[in-house]
Amino acid sequence: MESIKKHFTLSDKLILESGQKFGPITLAYETYGALNGDRNNAILIAHALSGDSHAAGISKTDDSVGWWNSMIGPNKAFDTNKYFIICSNVLGGCAGSTGPSSINPLNEKPYTLSFPLISIGDMVNAQICLIDHLKIDKLLSVVGGSMGGMQVLEWFRKYPNRIHSAIPVATTMKHSPQQIAFNEVARQAIMTDPNWNNGDYYQNSSPLKGLAVARMIGHITYMSDKSMAKKFGRQKKIAKKDAKFTADFEVEGYLHYRGDSFVKRFDANSFLYITKAMDNFDLIATDATAEAFTGTQPKVLVISFKSDWLYPTYQSKEMVKTCKLTGVSVTYCEIDSTYGHDAFLLEISEQTHLISHFLKNVYKKIDKPL
Amino acid sequence: MESIKKHFTLSDKLILESGQKFGPITLAYETYGALNGDRNNAILIAHALSGDSHAAGISKTDDSVGWWNSMIGPNKAFDTNKYFIICSNVLGGCAGSTGPSSINPLNEKPYTLSFPLISIGDMVNAQICLIDHLKIDKLLSVVGGSMGGMQVLEWFRKYPNRIHSAIPVATTMKHSPQQIAFNEVARQAIMTDPNWNNGDYYQNSSPLKGLAVARMIGHITYMSDKSMAKKFGRQKKIAKKDAKFTADFEVEGYLHYRGDSFVKRFDANSFLYITKAMDNFDLIATDATAEAFTGTQPKVLVISFKSDWLYPTYQSKEMVKTCKLTGVSVTYCEIDSTYGHDAFLLEISEQTHLISHFLKNVYKKIDKPL
Repeated sequence: MESIKKHFTLSDKLILESGQKFGPITLAYETYGALNGDRNNAILIAHALSGDSHAAGISKTDDSVGWWNSMIGPNKAFDTNKYFIICSNVLGGCAGSTGPSSINPLNEKPYTLSFPLISIGDMVNAQICLIDHLKIDKLLSVVGGSMGGMQVLEWFRKYPNRIHSAIPVATTMKHSPQQIAFNEVARQAIMTDPNWNNGDYYQNSSPLKGLAVARMIGHITYMSDKSMAKKFGRQKKIAKKDAKFTADFEVEGYLHYRGDSFVKRFDANSFLYITKAMDNFDLIATDATAEAFTGTQPKVLVISFKSDWLYPTYQSKEMVKTCKLTGVSVTYCEIDSTYGHDAFLLEISEQTHLISHFLKNVYKKIDKPL
Repeated sequence: MESIKKHFTLSDKLILESGQKFGPITLAYETYGALNGDRNNAILIAHALSGDSHAAGISKTDDSVGWWNSMIGPNKAFDTNKYFIICSNVLGGCAGSTGPSSINPLNEKPYTLSFPLISIGDMVNAQICLIDHLKIDKLLSVVGGSMGGMQVLEWFRKYPNRIHSAIPVATTMKHSPQQIAFNEVARQAIMTDPNWNNGDYYQNSSPLKGLAVARMIGHITYMSDKSMAKKFGRQKKIAKKDAKFTADFEVEGYLHYRGDSFVKRFDANSFLYITKAMDNFDLIATDATAEAFTGTQPKVLVISFKSDWLYPTYQSKEMVKTCKLTGVSVTYCEIDSTYGHDAFLLEISEQTHLISHFLKNVYKKIDKPL
């Protein structure tokens, strides 16, 4: 399956949740499969912190494979023989959508920190414009893991009439202080890199070292103690002679590799803006627990993973509880995985089973049986 | 209780485990209580990564309170009415003992990275010299949490005839890849700070920013998800107007505070050397599980804490299993705390109960009943 990145520019400025009008906004997106005549088989995939619009297929530009390719395609969980799949890069990102590294048309320079603080809600409001542009009245489903799951919950709260179902995976209604803390330390790693230069580095050297450290912190939290023990143990690399404090252990080499790869494809300022949006996300901040979901009709499938300590299952259970309290039709599954948070990218067969079945049932009710 | 820091310089160079002879070595140490006539009431306290010799009392120099003051003193767990307590700063440290920031007498300059890589075993071998110097043939006990516990285990393995008992608290026989990973990211935060300058910074600005980030990472791992939720929740600080990416949440402010305080008292190079010693520690690396403890007589009390995810209880259980397999007399207690790894510094009453009872029994057998 070949994939092509497309771009859509919003016709108007977007009113951000802060009240500020901001634009122009472009979203990069990809689609897989075909929209049917009734335009009712569309599914929006929302990506996580470091993801992008290239969710599936082989990129026409650089031959890279999409980040959820094992889940999207013919006869896969998101079956492109049946469904039309859309994935867009988030507002604030750095893979084709407007973000802090984009050129501000007013002065022909990158926004840097003049880019406004954005929220998960702003990301979703931009997605709504894309869905309108594609002339889709109601999505069959909106799906995502981690920060993608936050966007799913936001769709569910704000636009219940625009979706038939929602699948939040390995996510939370709000970050705990521990989740905020990991993000803050990662941000500090970036901002203490002198190359960061208060965000103004696009003409000079980028804060690659700080960004790599930030990513290394992330990768520890994406794996579980068990999956690290299984993958690396205490295996040592061949140490450089007379070199002190090099990566002696395999696990150290892995983190270095992950850090170094990340900085080639990600923008440090985008990392700051997006993690801040995650930390500020609070689905039911106003304490209106009951109100948040009341009257919504979409069916919900909540998925979490036993060994995920970054987005622990108790957070998914709170989500399920909130749904039940407000009469929302919710199905919950905790998958017994040892992969930690990464499980949403790796536990394919279990998720495929759950999701394909769930989507089939939702689709059955709105269309002729498949 | 007033405390005074003393210094002891080894009469000879120390043969490090690497084979290298190194010296001169000075250890800073403090003592509390009095050594009895039989010289059999001495207890050595081994400190953790960022600790020092000032374990108890009020420092005569700067009025600071010792890091385990709630455990050491008259009628406390380590009762100074009965016992003579010793605590020394580790080799490689930066609070009076010889470390990378010490002056190399050969060239009158700080060692920086010419300081040799050291091991937990080297730290213990230096402590043995101090105990010899104090004319103590056999310690009543050796006790420590976290890295202190590694030293306890090393004493137990190497010098079973020099101790009557051992109390390893919240520790492990070897670091898991996750524990190594956290240390490595912290080291990277330091080494990517340009002020680190390959360790040669004592004449110039220190890598304070990198060291602060390293400490922030540490503090996340010292608390539990629950204790952070209880202490901070999602409470916000009063945000600076128009400032982006400042510490909005209380938990962020706490981490900043902790990072900033740490750099005032700790040396970045010591952090590198000590964490590397922790990562390389492997009590039974030679696979001689049975051999490690065989024939040893000291009694062992193992303590772990339920919510400690940095040194999880399964690691203490492995220790207990190894003891049992080799006929060592071991008592194990998992304390039901929500404080995470910090619990060994905070769960005073439970630890006091366990430890004072244990010490009383050990002492009873070697001396007249107290």
